[in-house]
Amino acid sequence: MKTRHDFELLDAADPLRVLKKQFVLPPATIYLDGNSLGAMPLQAVERARQVVEDEWGVGLIKSWNDAGWITLSARIGDKIAQLIGAGKGEVAVADSTSLNLYKVLSAALNLAPPSRRLIVSERENFPTDLYIAESLARQHGFTLKLIDSPDELPALLNDELAVLMLTQVNYRTGRIHDMQAITAQAHAAGALTVWDLCHSAGAIPVDLHAANADFAIGCGYKYLNGGPGAPAFVWVNPRHADKFWQPLSGWLGHDAPFAFQPDYRPAPGIKRYICGTPAVISMAVLECGVDTLLAAEKLGGMEALRRKSVALTESFIALVDERLGELGVNVESPRDAAVRGSQVSLSLAGEMDAASHAVVQALIARGVIGDFRAGLPNILRFGFTPLYLGFAEVWDAVEHLRQVLVEKEWEQARFQQKGAVT
Amino acid sequence: MKTRHDFELLDAADPLRVLKKQFVLPPATIYLDGNSLGAMPLQAVERARQVVEDEWGVGLIKSWNDAGWITLSARIGDKIAQLIGAGKGEVAVADSTSLNLYKVLSAALNLAPPSRRLIVSERENFPTDLYIAESLARQHGFTLKLIDSPDELPALLNDELAVLMLTQVNYRTGRIHDMQAITAQAHAAGALTVWDLCHSAGAIPVDLHAANADFAIGCGYKYLNGGPGAPAFVWVNPRHADKFWQPLSGWLGHDAPFAFQPDYRPAPGIKRYICGTPAVISMAVLECGVDTLLAAEKLGGMEALRRKSVALTESFIALVDERLGELGVNVESPRDAAVRGSQVSLSLAGEMDAASHAVVQALIARGVIGDFRAGLPNILRFGFTPLYLGFAEVWDAVEHLRQVLVEKEWEQARFQQKGAVT
Repeated sequence: MKTRHDFELLDAADPLRVLKKQFVLPPATIYLDGNSLGAMPLQAVERARQVVEDEWGVGLIKSWNDAGWITLSARIGDKIAQLIGAGKGEVAVADSTSLNLYKVLSAALNLAPPSRRLIVSERENFPTDLYIAESLARQHGFTLKLIDSPDELPALLNDELAVLMLTQVNYRTGRIHDMQAITAQAHAAGALTVWDLCHSAGAIPVDLHAANADFAIGCGYKYLNGGPGAPAFVWVNPRHADKFWQPLSGWLGHDAPFAFQPDYRPAPGIKRYICGTPAVISMAVLECGVDTLLAAEKLGGMEALRRKSVALTESFIALVDERLGELGVNVESPRDAAVRGSQVSLSLAGEMDAASHAVVQALIARGVIGDFRAGLPNILRFGFTPLYLGFAEVWDAVEHLRQVLVEKEWEQARFQQKGAVT
Repeated sequence: MKTRHDFELLDAADPLRVLKKQFVLPPATIYLDGNSLGAMPLQAVERARQVVEDEWGVGLIKSWNDAGWITLSARIGDKIAQLIGAGKGEVAVADSTSLNLYKVLSAALNLAPPSRRLIVSERENFPTDLYIAESLARQHGFTLKLIDSPDELPALLNDELAVLMLTQVNYRTGRIHDMQAITAQAHAAGALTVWDLCHSAGAIPVDLHAANADFAIGCGYKYLNGGPGAPAFVWVNPRHADKFWQPLSGWLGHDAPFAFQPDYRPAPGIKRYICGTPAVISMAVLECGVDTLLAAEKLGGMEALRRKSVALTESFIALVDERLGELGVNVESPRDAAVRGSQVSLSLAGEMDAASHAVVQALIARGVIGDFRAGLPNILRFGFTPLYLGFAEVWDAVEHLRQVLVEKEWEQARFQQKGAVT
């Protein structure tokens, strides 16, 4: 049976542990929620000061050119492109995930032949994706069909299918869809694919071009460490990019925004997927987060990060089985690492299911920050970000959870809990 | 004839000049572009540090509740409401002006009876408004009719008109529409109104309830001093708010976003006009800007700011007439202060029109920051923000412009100019 010392040895041998120096984390905290809000890069504090105090305060309006605000979207987009297998000039940073999904799903539906009126997604997709799809289905006369299991997918790959809209890594379970295989199947059926990379960009190697995907969007504030509500990104396969005027046709997607023409004329390529003026301060800080991932390039990049991520989640699952199995803790994420993202979700058996939220609160009181997601069953969700997490922390997290359960600390937490869960 | 000393005396007697202490402005700068990007409040530097270093860096995911990130939209919305004659709980801060316009114009079009298929706006409206209207007109089978002069409006207030979409203060000329009178006329004709307050919120007193307006949106980064690309705001008259599921149906507009339900159920009231996760850092900093206006409350609020704004623009126009008239400088803004916002636009007669951009560049080289807007004629645009501008600066700005023209400094600037104008 392994001891904490074994995990300390893994940390000592970890070539990626130097990457942690890029972050500031609070003391006595094991942060297992980077899948919801990535930790703060050290550089973010100075970058925020610079963009506010120097660029805005001193440069004022001139900073749109002089400080490059007008090029931030493309510059950061090019950096994100390196993490998701996209080409230079193919990714724009803009707006939120929900809004970018609205743009690309609008385009995908527009490209579908009139005989295809079905959008397929998963009931356990992140809700905002479903809400946006529901809105567009209603507006344009499509039907949104939600499947409960990937097993239902083959039967739906037929000549009614217009768009298959999936999140590559499920936000609840961490299960990975095979983007390349599923895209090929969808294409063979004559349909288009929209991929949400919120839980995969910066978490696992992604290769949009190898997958021959059609459209993709993703989030800046999870594994990209871009800060709370960081702007999102959008990618459109170049074969589709110029085919459609996406409906959120704001001035910065115009071919000549500073000509102030009354008629809309979309810019070529991904630029037409930009809408209004970007939230510059938030966007500038996002770049610091993306840079923390690019810093891994000389250490093996996303492939090396993935290897460590798998080692972290494998360690966590083994310890949960060994030390918490008899306490009624179940692993809800896939046990096959090949189809598991950078997170592990647990559930509590029997009556303890109802105490799941209180257990998460008790863990947070101990400095182990994961999160709770309501559902059937309720889940305790733990993200393992290889950039700043080590193996000893995995050991400690399991030990804390063991103590919370054995000492029934959740009984107290339950009464303390107030307000909304985020 | 007045001298600079007369303007210094006006400054000495100005009860609002204490408000300038809220801002940091670069030395040797006369900033006349607050209508494009408001100046930086001193407090913004500390607030940005706090939200990044303390709330994100230390509080991490817990800050959604503990630091109130989840309530920022409503809290800042309530503050903006005080500046625009809206009620508590009626304004949301979210996304960009373009996106908020998409939401409210979608709602307005949806509420129109099928017999009314006409959207009317002005050709000189800010282009992004026209682009969004063009997109929605195309999607929903409406016609967008652009007028060249307000004189054309009465003839269009007929039973084909669905929505009248106007910007209260024209971005080029600064001309004010009478929101109350025009709304009444539109309602009498059976149409709805959508008002863009980008150049009026924080610039002139606005009273949406007194005007009985239907929908309004506006910008955070101009007169609200919210920082580059600050999130925008959206208001819907409570009589309409619950009538329509606006199409950008992201999860934070859901009635129970943390229940993670697969079906969209819009929140009551303005909350359904929120879409995805907000850019928290940019939004937090916006609040500092809004606070600079609320700080004027005990000095007479927007009414007092408006009186000073009028005095500043009247002074500027008088000096331009007196000192620059013979140099071919024309005033393009209304000469009647009652219908002029907080800006003055100038044009250059004859061949000098083509040099307008170079003249603005030469002025900027002297530290007088206005901006250029292409058109017929080209305009030199100067914003007069009473929060941080004084009367001696008005004198100095005119003197600088006089010297640029007399010394033909624009000839040199013309060759230096590169890149896009923003």
